Amino acid sequence: MERLQNSAEAQQYTLYADNSCPNKQESTGGFVLVHAGAGYHSESKAKEYKLACKRACQQAVDQLKAGGLAVEAVAAALVELEDSPFTNAGMGSNLNLSGEIECDASIMDGKSLHYGAVGAISGIKNPVLVANRLLSEAQKGKLSAGRIPPCFLVGRGARDWAISHGVPPCPSEKMATKFSLSAYKRNKRKMEVAEKIDTGLHRTKKSRQSSGNAAHYGCGCWAENACNMNTYSTAVSTSGCGEHLIRTMLARECSATMQSEDAHQALLEAMQNKFISSPFLANEDRVLGGVIVLRCCRFPEPQLSPNDRGPLVEFLWSHTTESMCVGYMSVQDSKAKTHISRLPPGTVPGRSLAIEGGVCRLKSMVD
Amino acid sequence: MERLQNSAEAQQYTLYADNSCPNKQESTGGFVLVHAGAGYHSESKAKEYKLACKRACQQAVDQLKAGGLAVEAVAAALVELEDSPFTNAGMGSNLNLSGEIECDASIMDGKSLHYGAVGAISGIKNPVLVANRLLSEAQKGKLSAGRIPPCFLVGRGARDWAISHGVPPCPSEKMATKFSLSAYKRNKRKMEVAEKIDTGLHRTKKSRQSSGNAAHYGCGCWAENACNMNTYSTAVSTSGCGEHLIRTMLARECSATMQSEDAHQALLEAMQNKFISSPFLANEDRVLGGVIVLRCCRFPEPQLSPNDRGPLVEFLWSHTTESMCVGYMSVQDSKAKTHISRLPPGTVPGRSLAIEGGVCRLKSMVD
Repeated sequence: MERLQNSAEAQQYTLYADNSCPNKQESTGGFVLVHAGAGYHSESKAKEYKLACKRACQQAVDQLKAGGLAVEAVAAALVELEDSPFTNAGMGSNLNLSGEIECDASIMDGKSLHYGAVGAISGIKNPVLVANRLLSEAQKGKLSAGRIPPCFLVGRGARDWAISHGVPPCPSEKMATKFSLSAYKRNKRKMEVAEKIDTGLHRTKKSRQSSGNAAHYGCGCWAENACNMNTYSTAVSTSGCGEHLIRTMLARECSATMQSEDAHQALLEAMQNKFISSPFLANEDRVLGGVIVLRCCRFPEPQLSPNDRGPLVEFLWSHTTESMCVGYMSVQDSKAKTHISRLPPGTVPGRSLAIEGGVCRLKSMVD
Repeated sequence: MERLQNSAEAQQYTLYADNSCPNKQESTGGFVLVHAGAGYHSESKAKEYKLACKRACQQAVDQLKAGGLAVEAVAAALVELEDSPFTNAGMGSNLNLSGEIECDASIMDGKSLHYGAVGAISGIKNPVLVANRLLSEAQKGKLSAGRIPPCFLVGRGARDWAISHGVPPCPSEKMATKFSLSAYKRNKRKMEVAEKIDTGLHRTKKSRQSSGNAAHYGCGCWAENACNMNTYSTAVSTSGCGEHLIRTMLARECSATMQSEDAHQALLEAMQNKFISSPFLANEDRVLGGVIVLRCCRFPEPQLSPNDRGPLVEFLWSHTTESMCVGYMSVQDSKAKTHISRLPPGTVPGRSLAIEGGVCRLKSMVD
């Protein structure tokens, strides 16, 4: 959260629910995994980061218990994370060079493989609701005169579309918090000092930069249900340096690797070979990002007794940043677990990684 | 070009030069392949489409002969295509719902694997120059205070960045042509008629839509030089329905498939299995797009005599749209060849495909 950013794109804090029942009434099972960013989480604010994750998990589980679909649960959790002033999304996002707040958000449905995203959107409290609305509008089929519905909108056009589709506007100044404003001033000062030290031969231009980075398809999130080709349903969300996530297509790469037998080993290799040592980032001295991953096998294991045959969910996170805050919860849990994962002492952020995770047996969804 | 579009993003018309010499002075070899869109090209304007491709090839070859790098040749060709009022890029782009011109452009360097892109940019005559500038700025390394340079900018921020980096602004009204204005009026009328026919229960909102579609990483263009993992250097550019190109990541998929032995068969299968029949577009009745592909083997074939050992370039195009206009030229050619490929009579656009191509032996670059 504290690191200097060169734009104010708000990284999305995505959550995934494993909820593959086709029938709403049956879909009472489910598991959610969220993150509150890969970056640096100070000990002094640890409680707030964890609380945001806990609340997000609870929102998603409430949706699932009420028969909501996975994307509805995801959106509910993301609203909670965007509303927290401690996450770099929605309320309290980092400001851009011009002192404005511009946000990104994306959401993907593993069943229909539909995708909705907004980039560099201003004046909307919950960008994820716009991304989700784009996704649901696209699922309705073509627009008038055979036009194909958009899946990705940016800037002023994204804001206008949102408002015309009933998403309420929010004055931009209400989205800045004392934390985000003081971080902006601190970072701006750092930049000015660095530029004074510079020889003056290469003056950096202080222009506005509207970036729509995390919202890039395949980079910020991915979800793909099991099918003929895929043994596992997978869901991935990333966080970190937008340029690094884009150029390695980290979310999609991690999702693809999750079809291997050993999830932990596969994610470790992906983070090492497709991220830290990626040929697409050969000249970067530090590669900064993190990922949360869920997977669930479509086949119940035949050796188990019928009572134990709920699906097995494997959940993992890995990051090269100093820390990553995560939360997770199944529908059968009474409350969410949260955790701030940190790189081991003595390791170098951007060159080393941490990886952790667990498994959860869901109760059968047709009990 | 005539088809109704639901936004005015200007698809980029990318060209690729095979030019893998590390030393500028040696880089006198090369081959360029361009397209002027996959869509519908009327017979009445065939000459103009072909002329734009011819000029673009010539510009690129001139750059290569003068010792320019591949990306410089690509940018020069693209400026020519953007300046043509007959292509849906730059000057004469389709207008968006609000009657404005917003353009996309992206460029990728197969050697450094750097990438630059702009989305929904207004008031800039040649968006490719901004994409190229983003790419070249990123290659210089970090900005002041350790900030990572952006690779993708959108909307007003992209325009402001461009102007502050010396790219001249251009009044938006100068970018519309009589063709683009009459197409806008015609399409708007079609839409209004379609909405009147509609029951009125689901009125389509007439909001602005700023989409940054073709500029999505992996969707509009891809370039990757041969390396330990890849036998072939590949370069791909796509055109067509932005949403279809994004959700199938068509450029990257086609590039990856080009490592197979039989390029023609590989592209045919990719267009069939990863595009027309893609699970990501399962509910689309028509999948509309086209692709141009270049590949070049890094190993000279040992059975040939030294005089014949210039690299062999394979070039292909394939499309599901009614037509696609292409042009190609090697540095040793006196002029470019151009061609409008059309689906065979009786086939259905969006469900069938055309595929064509050729090979070219370049003269050795160290003669």
